[in-house]
Amino acid sequence: MNDKTNEDLNLKAVFLGPKSENKNTFEKYLKMMFEDHSEWRKNYHPEDKEIINRKEKRTEDFQESVDRMEDVLKELSIRLRSQSLPWHSPRFLGHMNSETLMPAILGYFGAMLYNGNNVAYESSPGTSQMEEEVGEDFAKLMGYQDDIGWGHICADGSIANLEAIWYARNIKSLPLAMKEVAPELVEGKDEWQLLNMSVKEILDLVEKVPDKLDELKEHSAREGVEKIAKLGKWIIPQTKHYSWLKAADIIGVGLENVEAIEVNEKFRMDTELLEKKIREFAAQKIPVFGVVGVVGSTEEGAVDDIHKIIEVRDRLAKEGIHFYVHIDAAYGGYARSIFLDEDFSFIPKDKLKEKYKEHGVILDPNTKWPEDDTYEAFKAISEADTVTIDPHKMGYIPYSAGGIVIKDKRMRDSISYFATYVFEKGMDIPALLGAFMLEGSKAGATAAGVWAAHRTLPLNITGYGRLIGASIEGAMNLYEYLSDKKFVVDGKEIILHTLIRPDFNMVDFAFNEVGNTDLEKMNQLNHDFYEEASYVRGGLYSNDFITSHTDFAVPDYGDSPFGYVNNIGISREEWDKVQKVTVLRACVLSPFLNDKKVFAEYMEKIEKAIQDKLQKIYNDKKINK
Amino acid sequence: MNDKTNEDLNLKAVFLGPKSENKNTFEKYLKMMFEDHSEWRKNYHPEDKEIINRKEKRTEDFQESVDRMEDVLKELSIRLRSQSLPWHSPRFLGHMNSETLMPAILGYFGAMLYNGNNVAYESSPGTSQMEEEVGEDFAKLMGYQDDIGWGHICADGSIANLEAIWYARNIKSLPLAMKEVAPELVEGKDEWQLLNMSVKEILDLVEKVPDKLDELKEHSAREGVEKIAKLGKWIIPQTKHYSWLKAADIIGVGLENVEAIEVNEKFRMDTELLEKKIREFAAQKIPVFGVVGVVGSTEEGAVDDIHKIIEVRDRLAKEGIHFYVHIDAAYGGYARSIFLDEDFSFIPKDKLKEKYKEHGVILDPNTKWPEDDTYEAFKAISEADTVTIDPHKMGYIPYSAGGIVIKDKRMRDSISYFATYVFEKGMDIPALLGAFMLEGSKAGATAAGVWAAHRTLPLNITGYGRLIGASIEGAMNLYEYLSDKKFVVDGKEIILHTLIRPDFNMVDFAFNEVGNTDLEKMNQLNHDFYEEASYVRGGLYSNDFITSHTDFAVPDYGDSPFGYVNNIGISREEWDKVQKVTVLRACVLSPFLNDKKVFAEYMEKIEKAIQDKLQKIYNDKKINK
Repeated sequence: MNDKTNEDLNLKAVFLGPKSENKNTFEKYLKMMFEDHSEWRKNYHPEDKEIINRKEKRTEDFQESVDRMEDVLKELSIRLRSQSLPWHSPRFLGHMNSETLMPAILGYFGAMLYNGNNVAYESSPGTSQMEEEVGEDFAKLMGYQDDIGWGHICADGSIANLEAIWYARNIKSLPLAMKEVAPELVEGKDEWQLLNMSVKEILDLVEKVPDKLDELKEHSAREGVEKIAKLGKWIIPQTKHYSWLKAADIIGVGLENVEAIEVNEKFRMDTELLEKKIREFAAQKIPVFGVVGVVGSTEEGAVDDIHKIIEVRDRLAKEGIHFYVHIDAAYGGYARSIFLDEDFSFIPKDKLKEKYKEHGVILDPNTKWPEDDTYEAFKAISEADTVTIDPHKMGYIPYSAGGIVIKDKRMRDSISYFATYVFEKGMDIPALLGAFMLEGSKAGATAAGVWAAHRTLPLNITGYGRLIGASIEGAMNLYEYLSDKKFVVDGKEIILHTLIRPDFNMVDFAFNEVGNTDLEKMNQLNHDFYEEASYVRGGLYSNDFITSHTDFAVPDYGDSPFGYVNNIGISREEWDKVQKVTVLRACVLSPFLNDKKVFAEYMEKIEKAIQDKLQKIYNDKKINK
Repeated sequence: MNDKTNEDLNLKAVFLGPKSENKNTFEKYLKMMFEDHSEWRKNYHPEDKEIINRKEKRTEDFQESVDRMEDVLKELSIRLRSQSLPWHSPRFLGHMNSETLMPAILGYFGAMLYNGNNVAYESSPGTSQMEEEVGEDFAKLMGYQDDIGWGHICADGSIANLEAIWYARNIKSLPLAMKEVAPELVEGKDEWQLLNMSVKEILDLVEKVPDKLDELKEHSAREGVEKIAKLGKWIIPQTKHYSWLKAADIIGVGLENVEAIEVNEKFRMDTELLEKKIREFAAQKIPVFGVVGVVGSTEEGAVDDIHKIIEVRDRLAKEGIHFYVHIDAAYGGYARSIFLDEDFSFIPKDKLKEKYKEHGVILDPNTKWPEDDTYEAFKAISEADTVTIDPHKMGYIPYSAGGIVIKDKRMRDSISYFATYVFEKGMDIPALLGAFMLEGSKAGATAAGVWAAHRTLPLNITGYGRLIGASIEGAMNLYEYLSDKKFVVDGKEIILHTLIRPDFNMVDFAFNEVGNTDLEKMNQLNHDFYEEASYVRGGLYSNDFITSHTDFAVPDYGDSPFGYVNNIGISREEWDKVQKVTVLRACVLSPFLNDKKVFAEYMEKIEKAIQDKLQKIYNDKKINK
């Protein structure tokens, strides 16, 4: 199908397929995983007798219980089939979903039978080891140093973000603890200086007093509000994902200390404003303990200019102002694999096109991606202190699988908990993961699923890079195809206006009737469209095209959407009055829409579905009148 | 096998079985769930063509990718089989694990194929509805009122506990917010009174000012440290599970505000000391914002006297002192089903024996369980504000599935987050679960697995009650069998000393050589035994008997273990010197050890295994000498 070498993964071989094309393959390995487990049970002490015998199985009592289980499973199947989203079809272009990877599903299923608990190595030697390997994969993906970077799987992106702010809060408070516990380490530093130290400086100092580690931790922010109160502000982009408000609430720094920086017309954090704001705070001696950059915003797929955030950090550091940097790449994290060569080195910008051609990452060389800023942003992730990455988004792993990556393993001590007396022995805990993370018990199966996916698709341009490439190319195809497309309903022209050229794989758009200058009317049209293109009115299994929607409203977006609506014909006055624009939102995760033939086939169907839905909306309006 | 009626579930029909006895049944429904899904894909728009075609499947490129996936899955299977714990066998009596329920595994697998995300109804209509039903099951199980109590699934018990302290912190701070935002609600109350209001009082007041809800929330503890600083103490049992330290750290109240109450010789929180301590704080005008009672401690299976904690609460309430009560029933929560009749009413104490006989819950009527206090403790759970319950423990559900139950739905507002502008419409969010919990994205499959288990086994004596009964009866059988059992190695007598008559289904024990008065030597023997009976030295698949271990050390246990070690022959002086006793820990979750024949068969094997392991330890000692 293209020039890729045989080392490159064929994406069509690792998904079940929209029409279950790989059904036999799936079933073969499903059976294998189960059979292996079943025989493993039987052969653990083969001399042990059966406990459930045939005679008992024939009793009415036994059969009735089996019947009940069958009834339940059948009801479950009915509910699933009638009330689930058809993610698997390219007709679904809404939330961050599509098919998930066969090796991940089969790996999860296989490991679920053994039911390891990765809270402790003792309860899951096999899957704990896999999680450790996945953590190494994550660290390599982010460009962190081998054996220094580290990562683990967690429940989801909200938990990863919460863990990150926990890291930042506790580490940034350690110098205050030093002042009390080991003042010699920070001699001559005033409180402002203590609160403006880098993670590396702090960890290097902690390492000098290993005996005082426990006491230092006791006097850090984990002690209570006194230290927390001094840390200052936590900065996020204005489009603030609700997980960040939750996280600031939970972690005790409070919403009063969350500072939102406006986004620009590309929906990226305005880094000039960021620098200005931090300088303003500094002038008032208010520290900033951390800044969040977003790689793949949930509503626009925008990629913040991480390289510019890092530049701000480095510039201010020279003036004695230092903040922790966390990257919320829950959505976009896996996309860094599209920039990594077979040896996991970051591919030079001028080699990208050639590499993409060689490995079949982008099929059409005219595809306009990435922008320079996007390239630089992904590159600069390696400079951040922590990164959130969700395997259940662009890792094509079933829910729930989040992840967090840290730049320096030593950071773990700032959040760890275990009974000291256990450590006196120094032998009991080869890997008590539960001591080094926010959660406790956790499925070994999740690690197995992610591990199986990573082993099948390396996190570089031969594996995940190809998958991400297919997704992005599909999104670019969609963007080009939909932009300014005209529909005619009852003689009225309706134009589909795309929001921005996507930084990643999300295409936002809105319909407006030609000549309409009423924003509420436009919003109503798009909201009606959403209802037709979702379970609300359009149905699920019976629906021809499914998408999602979002609102850009002034409280979260400021003026950033104005340029867009203004181009569509909405005046300044109208925008200031309505303060909100409803848009439709298509995450293009399908791995098959980079194929021009498949794309053309589905676009014909989707275009017809859009036409039908618009027609229905206009018909309904007439009835309502 | 007993007198149970046909409405009662046959436990042997719903597990795969230690020797995979129900393999055919499992395979049949596994195939059914997959087939149903596969055909569902194919029939979604049957007119859409296949994307992966046969010609492409025959290419070398495609085949190599399938080969790679197969290699990965085979390696996965090898690792799982060689590095997993044989939970399925009654030879495993260690951590809180055993077989998990077939309907849960199959339900999870089936739903994983559809990959719903229960963060929002829109992404998972079917499984969101199931989670709502599971939440109702939880509320009913705890004795909360229909339509007022509520619950949901979460990642694990640590997350549920964190969510509970988040509830407590934010709700208890609301009266402070009222003082600022709606002072008329709390007219005449001083700060002490504001900080000693019950959840119900607070929620009733909030309900009076619906328009001010957002503002009240903004001025609650979510605002920042100022409010948090006023809340006072959070009280836990001295055996403090590390999840509570983590939670207090994360939530910002800090370790300085965690107060531990000593446990008695039954390892239950001393409720007299609890009352005394709270009164001492009150005398200093230090509020207590919450108390945690534990139902099923992780190391002993102890059940705190919840009824006495509730008595303390109610008594102090009359004096104007009021604290939030959370029950950490991560381990023991499901066991409340053994007290619920078919109509979910709490069975009167004098009817228990009869009901247990009728429904085959406890097979041997001489089984000494429950103690009066245990009965009363489970009954009183209905009086608590929140409860943690882990389906992946006594729910026999695969990891990860935790849960939290709240007494009053209105509590949810204190922790909820969503963009206000979305609610202006009032129509977009039929059930945005992500707005009412700590996590964000979450597997619909987890809800499906738990739902399928609950539908197969009702949460009363006809379903889960029988399963819990089998587990407890097995534990009682083990306790009676092991207590004071004598082993002879190289002419030396070694006695197995059980710790306490279990409140629940965990049997702790330790070996000591007759005549030995050296606690370090005794600890060494038990630690050596643990190593032989675990992956450390004894192996996994090749091991004849696997158990777990724990240490009771003075920092976490105070003097409570002294009675036990003293009975074994350890002097006061020796205990004060060593300050720690190592014990072995057997959670009896196997559903089959209530059957006297099965029990006898396995005990013979386990006794021999113990003898062999002790012999090996003594042999190794000789070699080392």
